Amino acid sequence: MAQRGPLSGITIIDLSRILAGPYCTLLLAELGARVIKVEPPQQGDDARYSHYPAYDMVVQGLGGIMSITGHPGMPLTRVGTSVGDLAGGLYTAVALNAAFLHRERTGEATKVDVALFDCQLALLENAIMRYTTTGEVPGPMGARHPSITPFEAFETRDGNIIIAAGNDGLFVKLAQALGRADLAENPLFETNALRNQHQEALRAELEGVLCAEGTNHWIALLETAGVPCGPVNNIAQALAHPQTAARNMLISVDDPVTGPLELAGNPMKLSGFADPPTRPRAPDLDADRDHILRELGL
Amino acid sequence: MAQRGPLSGITIIDLSRILAGPYCTLLLAELGARVIKVEPPQQGDDARYSHYPAYDMVVQGLGGIMSITGHPGMPLTRVGTSVGDLAGGLYTAVALNAAFLHRERTGEATKVDVALFDCQLALLENAIMRYTTTGEVPGPMGARHPSITPFEAFETRDGNIIIAAGNDGLFVKLAQALGRADLAENPLFETNALRNQHQEALRAELEGVLCAEGTNHWIALLETAGVPCGPVNNIAQALAHPQTAARNMLISVDDPVTGPLELAGNPMKLSGFADPPTRPRAPDLDADRDHILRELGL
Repeated sequence: MAQRGPLSGITIIDLSRILAGPYCTLLLAELGARVIKVEPPQQGDDARYSHYPAYDMVVQGLGGIMSITGHPGMPLTRVGTSVGDLAGGLYTAVALNAAFLHRERTGEATKVDVALFDCQLALLENAIMRYTTTGEVPGPMGARHPSITPFEAFETRDGNIIIAAGNDGLFVKLAQALGRADLAENPLFETNALRNQHQEALRAELEGVLCAEGTNHWIALLETAGVPCGPVNNIAQALAHPQTAARNMLISVDDPVTGPLELAGNPMKLSGFADPPTRPRAPDLDADRDHILRELGL
Repeated sequence: MAQRGPLSGITIIDLSRILAGPYCTLLLAELGARVIKVEPPQQGDDARYSHYPAYDMVVQGLGGIMSITGHPGMPLTRVGTSVGDLAGGLYTAVALNAAFLHRERTGEATKVDVALFDCQLALLENAIMRYTTTGEVPGPMGARHPSITPFEAFETRDGNIIIAAGNDGLFVKLAQALGRADLAENPLFETNALRNQHQEALRAELEGVLCAEGTNHWIALLETAGVPCGPVNNIAQALAHPQTAARNMLISVDDPVTGPLELAGNPMKLSGFADPPTRPRAPDLDADRDHILRELGL
């Protein structure tokens, strides 16, 4: 395609499927990545499943993420957010910016082809290598990390706490802070590989201590000791966290139909670019038609 | 910072925390986004929690995603992949490409500041607006969509099936294909809002049909009827899906220490750029030191 307007030469594939979620749409709008050619929904451009309908829920099942989310022996669990759609939008945003950069440098057009299924595979990270190196099919592991221990949610007297002791040094700090320095000397728990093997036993030891006090007590104690930890916030608590306001991560849109709406801010803070606490309302259907056609010289 | 080499003028914040996972590292390596200034781990650049250690597990708890993943009344559930780390890497890759593009156009440097906690909030999508518009705190919903019905995992005779009937037309098609056209006429199930209200009743009706045959039978039937659906694949099944090979989504790295490794391919297919089925091994520590210092003119 010849270069005409500032957006010419970028083809976006599968837009109607991969850009669900208000955030991704906003994100692309902010990047100025309006679409100049939308092809019909398809699952990738060159393979036999290219017309398979790729709803988030279908792709979470097809791509394997549901098989590693949840608890062994318990009902199936979807990731609680539309991670299939969101990952598609994010990889597309990366690819679009790369295509814009390439065009800026060379004048060449790029066709961007992103499929939801592929994006789900790309998110599986260590589950793929755990399978391809051992032949063992990974299963769901509840609220723990597959290969680091202790790195999971524990019960306290009044709720839960996440403790992420990612290496031997942090494990020693954790044991000392909890008044159980002996755990770090215990041959069962000496290395991360051993702690993975004896995860249940270690968990019982730690919860034996943690059940004596509430979550806030332990967070204060472990923060002082330098052990990564945190609460399990619900949505209200996450939005009320002081960091949310400090980082402008809850913004508002004054929509004339629904009234004011609050939604997530932009997590990409770029010096030299404003990060306003409000956003313009979504345009009406076809509101930008004349502008877009003019830009394309039509 | 003065512009010297091709990478000057981009500051990446918090690299050691946000780029976990082999894929994100590969991704940035492919983008040529080698780091020229790494600041100490911090959770955002300007807020009081900027030095809070942001492990994936801690951030999944802090940011609210664990509170909406899992089943009501059942133990806490982590998303089965390190979505905290992965989202941080993806938003950083978007932002980095944007910073490169801006520099290409204007010569101006950009500081890129991305924090894991912010990225988790950005992934919450409709959970935020469900809370801010109704005041009700969203909880975990098992394997179903929070606001579309039927859009969930069902049991079949030999396993599970995902059915995603995202609108009234697809629901009619589903009911007809299952030989239960009456369900689409039932006043309890007439609109999506009603189906959300009567989700358990509808689920019982549908599973009453689905339990008569196996997953493959229903997938073939519903695909023919044009109803989005799919299996719940485990990791082995997802990697063995014909689409995985057709899209080059399982690539290999010939590592001289570990032997050949297989990992996820690149989901961003860009015309004019190769998508090889193998990747070079990770460089040894410090292997590129001379090259990088030369590039920086040091």
